[in-house]
Amino acid sequence: MAKYKMILDLDTGIDDALAIAYALATPEADLIGIIGSYGNVVTERGVQNSLDLLELLGHPEVPVYLGAQHSSTTDHFDVMPVSAQIHGVNGVGEVELKTADRQLEAGSGVDFLVAAAHKYQQDLILVPTGPMTNLAAALDQDPAIADLIGNVTFMGGALTVPGNVTPVTEANINQDPEAADRVLRSSLPLTMVGLDVTTRTLLTTKETQSWRDLHTTAGEKYADIVDFYIDAYKVTSPHLGGCALHDPLAVAVAVEQSLVSTIYLNMKVDTEAPFAGRTIGDETRINDPATQTQVAVNVDKDRFVAEFMTKLTELFKNN
Amino acid sequence: MAKYKMILDLDTGIDDALAIAYALATPEADLIGIIGSYGNVVTERGVQNSLDLLELLGHPEVPVYLGAQHSSTTDHFDVMPVSAQIHGVNGVGEVELKTADRQLEAGSGVDFLVAAAHKYQQDLILVPTGPMTNLAAALDQDPAIADLIGNVTFMGGALTVPGNVTPVTEANINQDPEAADRVLRSSLPLTMVGLDVTTRTLLTTKETQSWRDLHTTAGEKYADIVDFYIDAYKVTSPHLGGCALHDPLAVAVAVEQSLVSTIYLNMKVDTEAPFAGRTIGDETRINDPATQTQVAVNVDKDRFVAEFMTKLTELFKNN
Repeated sequence: MAKYKMILDLDTGIDDALAIAYALATPEADLIGIIGSYGNVVTERGVQNSLDLLELLGHPEVPVYLGAQHSSTTDHFDVMPVSAQIHGVNGVGEVELKTADRQLEAGSGVDFLVAAAHKYQQDLILVPTGPMTNLAAALDQDPAIADLIGNVTFMGGALTVPGNVTPVTEANINQDPEAADRVLRSSLPLTMVGLDVTTRTLLTTKETQSWRDLHTTAGEKYADIVDFYIDAYKVTSPHLGGCALHDPLAVAVAVEQSLVSTIYLNMKVDTEAPFAGRTIGDETRINDPATQTQVAVNVDKDRFVAEFMTKLTELFKNN
Repeated sequence: MAKYKMILDLDTGIDDALAIAYALATPEADLIGIIGSYGNVVTERGVQNSLDLLELLGHPEVPVYLGAQHSSTTDHFDVMPVSAQIHGVNGVGEVELKTADRQLEAGSGVDFLVAAAHKYQQDLILVPTGPMTNLAAALDQDPAIADLIGNVTFMGGALTVPGNVTPVTEANINQDPEAADRVLRSSLPLTMVGLDVTTRTLLTTKETQSWRDLHTTAGEKYADIVDFYIDAYKVTSPHLGGCALHDPLAVAVAVEQSLVSTIYLNMKVDTEAPFAGRTIGDETRINDPATQTQVAVNVDKDRFVAEFMTKLTELFKNN
């Protein structure tokens, strides 16, 4: 039986697609819902991708909810050109997916999250891999959830390495620094899985070829999707030598924290230009006990990539 | 017998004065020389402070050498007003010290460092607590020293917390980002002791009063000097609740690394505005083995402050 109830909060581009697959292939976690966000794509596109991928992977029972469509400080969102370059205009590498039979849920993602926090409490793990807008809105709606949720393991930020949008800012945090600051200064038990570790876990076409060789729909579609991502990384991050497994690493760490080494640190997010979006220790709390926020600073990359390939290959074999 | 030969590279203000005392009180390290640098004060003032403090502490035998008087990219240096506010115009809290009988050495500090690297090799520990200008000049003069020196433990930088000059820049690195980048990208075995840890090791007037109560010249002078520093911290960093033991912590870590927990990381220094002077992981070497540079990210503050008080009190008792 699953040990945890998991909610993913995704802006479903390519590594979010891998996060969905990883979560479905993880028996310790029962994926009870996906909340949509904006970022790699607009929210409407992201939730449709989530629905289509869930059906492709044989799990149409997982509900998908609409979340924020823009940041907490704006009233509109446009996809950045670099996002379309990395994830494709449709978010899944321009690969065509069969449209899912299942529809989006009627309720709001924030309401779903607040209700799940009260229902499952310490058993609930939230994994946001996009902006923090939904989680900040949930904290505003019901501050009590900060002390209910078991853990929030998020993909975002960069503590010990430069950002990927500016020298100080990672893309997810950059979308809504104010929301991220609200979350990092809260009493939520947080684990930050940022560029510090995700840019060390890489996939190449050698691995995607092994999925293609399964000759299943899921294996072939995921191989096509991820090859698009690998090609984009050759242009945007040629020094890495592969594509970064950002979002699935967060899912993996959420259920198996020993994959990373962490430091405890009270964090904040800068909100003023030119440093807006930087995730950094809060100097005013440097001497307070730091027990609620951990930041991953190193990763057992071989162990994770092996686990990732075992889990996803098994899932793709049967779909 | 001393296990290590130690050279300090100081811009002798107040915490540098504490670093000198800590080094003299550390039997594992034989202080073979001090190189002067600019920063808290101009170089000429700093070397005179070093000479005067060595005599006050009963160790006039330690030679002091003149080092760089400005950064590697400028031809002039002016003390920042905030430096005078924190350290006093004379660098030692406006406290009057007896002028030492001993004079500055005739040779250059850089030549002294290069010769010592060849002579003592792995037994040599260098502790720079000011700008990296002298060390970068020594590397330019003789690149071979990078693979000779046993360890360079420097006070400077900020990896997991904001800077103290700008939100991204610590004061020592800020003086000469290009020199610091040269050092951090070299093959020198480095240990960074930055604001991450030094702002957690604090002294208050309770401790300085215990030195005053010794009724010795050294005890009273150091109490006066450090009280000036504590008063300045009340204005510049009121959230800390004491003065930070920046430079002596670097000396302590150089001989007893278990005082801190570290992460291994290949580092660089940004040199372009508005991020110039930021110490951060080098994303282009994120997947290279990182074995030469460690960054202190936490400190056993109680153990260090106890050790600091034991050592300095014993030294002041006899001088």
